[in-house]
Amino acid sequence: MEKPKRRILIVGGVAGGASAAARARRLCERCEIVVFDRGPYVSFANCGLPYYVGDVIVEEKKLLVATPELFKNRFNIDVYTETEVTNIDRSQQELEVRNLKTGETRIEPYDALILSTGAKAIRPPLPGIDLPGIFVLRTIPDSRKIRDALQTATRAVIVGGGFVGLEMAENLRHRGLEVTLIEMANQVMPPIDPEMAVMIANRLEKNGVQLCLDTSVESFAKNEKGSLTVKVSSGKSLDTDLVILAIGVRPETTLFENAGLRLGECGGVQVDEYMQTSDPNIWAVGDVVETQDVVTGTQQLIPLAGPANRQGRIAAESVIRDAQRKEKTTRFRGVQATMVCGVFDLTVAATGASEKMLNRLGMTDYQAVYLHPGNHVGYYPGATPIHIKLLFSKSDGQILGAQAIGEAGVTRRIDVIAMAMQMGGTVFDLEESELCYAPQFGAAKDPVNLAGMIAANHLRGDLPLANWKELGKNDVELIDVRSPQEFEKGHIPGAKNIPLESLRERLSEFSTEEEIWLICGVGQRAYYATRALLQHGIDVKNLSGGMQTYHTFKKANSILTPDSF
Amino acid sequence: MEKPKRRILIVGGVAGGASAAARARRLCERCEIVVFDRGPYVSFANCGLPYYVGDVIVEEKKLLVATPELFKNRFNIDVYTETEVTNIDRSQQELEVRNLKTGETRIEPYDALILSTGAKAIRPPLPGIDLPGIFVLRTIPDSRKIRDALQTATRAVIVGGGFVGLEMAENLRHRGLEVTLIEMANQVMPPIDPEMAVMIANRLEKNGVQLCLDTSVESFAKNEKGSLTVKVSSGKSLDTDLVILAIGVRPETTLFENAGLRLGECGGVQVDEYMQTSDPNIWAVGDVVETQDVVTGTQQLIPLAGPANRQGRIAAESVIRDAQRKEKTTRFRGVQATMVCGVFDLTVAATGASEKMLNRLGMTDYQAVYLHPGNHVGYYPGATPIHIKLLFSKSDGQILGAQAIGEAGVTRRIDVIAMAMQMGGTVFDLEESELCYAPQFGAAKDPVNLAGMIAANHLRGDLPLANWKELGKNDVELIDVRSPQEFEKGHIPGAKNIPLESLRERLSEFSTEEEIWLICGVGQRAYYATRALLQHGIDVKNLSGGMQTYHTFKKANSILTPDSF
Repeated sequence: MEKPKRRILIVGGVAGGASAAARARRLCERCEIVVFDRGPYVSFANCGLPYYVGDVIVEEKKLLVATPELFKNRFNIDVYTETEVTNIDRSQQELEVRNLKTGETRIEPYDALILSTGAKAIRPPLPGIDLPGIFVLRTIPDSRKIRDALQTATRAVIVGGGFVGLEMAENLRHRGLEVTLIEMANQVMPPIDPEMAVMIANRLEKNGVQLCLDTSVESFAKNEKGSLTVKVSSGKSLDTDLVILAIGVRPETTLFENAGLRLGECGGVQVDEYMQTSDPNIWAVGDVVETQDVVTGTQQLIPLAGPANRQGRIAAESVIRDAQRKEKTTRFRGVQATMVCGVFDLTVAATGASEKMLNRLGMTDYQAVYLHPGNHVGYYPGATPIHIKLLFSKSDGQILGAQAIGEAGVTRRIDVIAMAMQMGGTVFDLEESELCYAPQFGAAKDPVNLAGMIAANHLRGDLPLANWKELGKNDVELIDVRSPQEFEKGHIPGAKNIPLESLRERLSEFSTEEEIWLICGVGQRAYYATRALLQHGIDVKNLSGGMQTYHTFKKANSILTPDSF
Repeated sequence: MEKPKRRILIVGGVAGGASAAARARRLCERCEIVVFDRGPYVSFANCGLPYYVGDVIVEEKKLLVATPELFKNRFNIDVYTETEVTNIDRSQQELEVRNLKTGETRIEPYDALILSTGAKAIRPPLPGIDLPGIFVLRTIPDSRKIRDALQTATRAVIVGGGFVGLEMAENLRHRGLEVTLIEMANQVMPPIDPEMAVMIANRLEKNGVQLCLDTSVESFAKNEKGSLTVKVSSGKSLDTDLVILAIGVRPETTLFENAGLRLGECGGVQVDEYMQTSDPNIWAVGDVVETQDVVTGTQQLIPLAGPANRQGRIAAESVIRDAQRKEKTTRFRGVQATMVCGVFDLTVAATGASEKMLNRLGMTDYQAVYLHPGNHVGYYPGATPIHIKLLFSKSDGQILGAQAIGEAGVTRRIDVIAMAMQMGGTVFDLEESELCYAPQFGAAKDPVNLAGMIAANHLRGDLPLANWKELGKNDVELIDVRSPQEFEKGHIPGAKNIPLESLRERLSEFSTEEEIWLICGVGQRAYYATRALLQHGIDVKNLSGGMQTYHTFKKANSILTPDSF
């Protein structure tokens, strides 16, 4: 007599759920696999929605990575869309399922259950929040509604300066709208540090986006002209035709809570390294779970597509291979929050922890260095700078995080550093890495090498670093080692100019009483000067990243308190 | 009484020598540092020369990364150009030095000597090799001579299909010349495998380069029209206006040999991990040394700028810190031959060992997989494929090498894999890596993840692979699982079409007698089919990379014997 088929039910058919379903089939041909999704589509390209709104992606059907028919024909997987799972009966191992088209409910028994319920866009309980013209962007129907509104709209207010907010700002400008972006924090793009975020703010403003930082929305109202009025904390009112809420997402945990499954400290579902929940027959993946951040060791909610896909694979493997008592099931290694966002031809990417995050967690054993190398050698036409901030452990050189902003070659450098971090690498490993070089592709000392070299120089004691946040404190003499011409064009108030080239003849001009900080254009000449002066017995520190970094700190400081960093 | 200054002499002032000089100064302000170079320039951009010939880099002065004046003013380093070192007296610690402008010789004593004599272009002893119009390209004067010749030339023959040969082919086509490229081997770009090199050959031919593989030059002669005639091994003669010899380079070891310093098995200078030669007062760096290949453990001559620069730094550190009895001097970790070359908008990059190399060394514990993912998701406009070959150890998944060819995103993926290899990574690490993803920048499953997943699937026993080189052998049934429409447009002779979508209803059509190999477009559907069939008890193997890889093997096979791979 044939054994009954093992029945694997999957709730949520986008990134994590779709990955889990397809991989479960590859590992188990005999299982019955069923996917339920509340929405009208499965496996759609969530991350593409801002570009569909922006008409960069023109055809809606391009967003459908896979259809229920494909799942059936190719994988023998049953997909039920517009079908909501309303309850989990863990003792009976059954789901209560409602067909949203007919209203009918039915019971679906399971042997294993994989939940990929995702996250929902936050809609704060503000007056007028439910007015027409106020949108979120999570699904294809959401994007369709915004596209419809764009037929008449000429002004948009975006609330929230994270990924979706920035991508929407770009795409709505691309569609010709006047765009105002409101952000409660004192910077855009929360995963990176404020002095780096300044470069994004500059780029937004250069492209006509009105930026309101440190500003929160107080209410929405319909005005007499038929458009919307947005009242903000500064007392101002903004008239607009549409509002995009891009404040963030919250894990969709209702099903889990009702079933008594354990949640974690951040409000996401708690899972082990095999994505198994507190119920041994239930797994969870994607935006709904919290995972360990590999750098800080803390639990985090990281709603990103890459981890969701890998978690889906791992959950499926755990469901199948554990059942077959196989060994060596893949473990989820945690997240390091590698991310990238495009903003008006600027690429912003990061991996690991930010300085803000390290400070918040009291992890003070770190050092930051800044550099601004070209994406390729300067003698080959078309080089553009990559602005890099590297964070590493002062005690052992372990890489803690990296942020990079530029027009080309940014993802490449962050990906290389992400891989080094995944392998437990140090700045010494970056220093010695062997990367692709030809004139149009990089430099014999790649930006990654340079970042490692600067950090390693510091750790070897060859490059003492000043703290940017202490700029302006008393009893520091600031020496600018650039050429007189460069110095004339602009310098830090109070700085004195002693060009690198005349340093050795002017040693007597260096104070032995006060602390001396050196600065140049990007940090290279100040490093040379630091080396020379230290060996002549003059105690100096370097302002990492030079005037380039100064300008970003200056702008950040005009908005921020020292504690913001 | 002040101690006499330590005197560090450096022979050769380009990549390795210039790096060593500058770093020596940073580490020792009190040392006397002197650089000698035979040529008229120091620290020039060797790798930029083909692009200067091609007028992509227009100004010659852009190639001068640093001048003797800059070395003096900035670093207090004396640079003597057009000054040849003619002898090393190791017992006296003295160099014999000749001023090439005046012919005068002098003696220069040293405490430490760093030799960065580089490599010279090979000029084979063929009849007519010294005729006017036959050029090599290693220096700025070389490139000037070629630029002069281009004022009248309309036809060029390039001998050699490595980096310089390919870059020159592109640049001379860019200047409007008819270009013929002659290569003795049966493929261009020797560091990569022949079936990958086919894609470069196709690109060259598409851009009007006449390609003569498996062809060697027999003689050069001046003809009655005043141009050159090149006789080749096929019996043909080619008329041309100029010839570029790009056959490769040979380390400049004369000084070392005359001084009785130890050479290695490849004919380069033998050094330890601190770049120290067999004489404890002499270090050597750059193209003249041989270094250990980290993948194969063999000694290799790898004339690349990145390693040369790092070696220069390390030699300087060893010279200075050892003298100061400091610990933890940086060690040179060996080379992994990470390289990139641009060929008519195609990027060719590789790291680690090729399959040819592994076979040559008898390292047979490897497996290759092929894949052809897009540089970013297909639903975002403008995606182009990256053709990847990944080599890894069959026993433990260690990454042994990777090759990639495409129009965008190639260096990024090779650099990530290079970093993983440097850290001792396995294909399981690639599978689980967390890389940048947004629709215009990649995919939730990045090409690096996919390469790791395919390899890891194979190692876990989920994806048995057929051997492309055995294609055509008897007793194999070939099943193509693409759609009938795709199959109609072209398939491997003898293949039978059973689309993935109807696989489960047609199980009875699969032979249990013969070996079954599955193929599809790029390998994905064949993998799905493999998983289903294996679980239905049908023994199958997958042809990795699908029809895309078939086409390259087919073209490679038409030129090559099976042993070539």
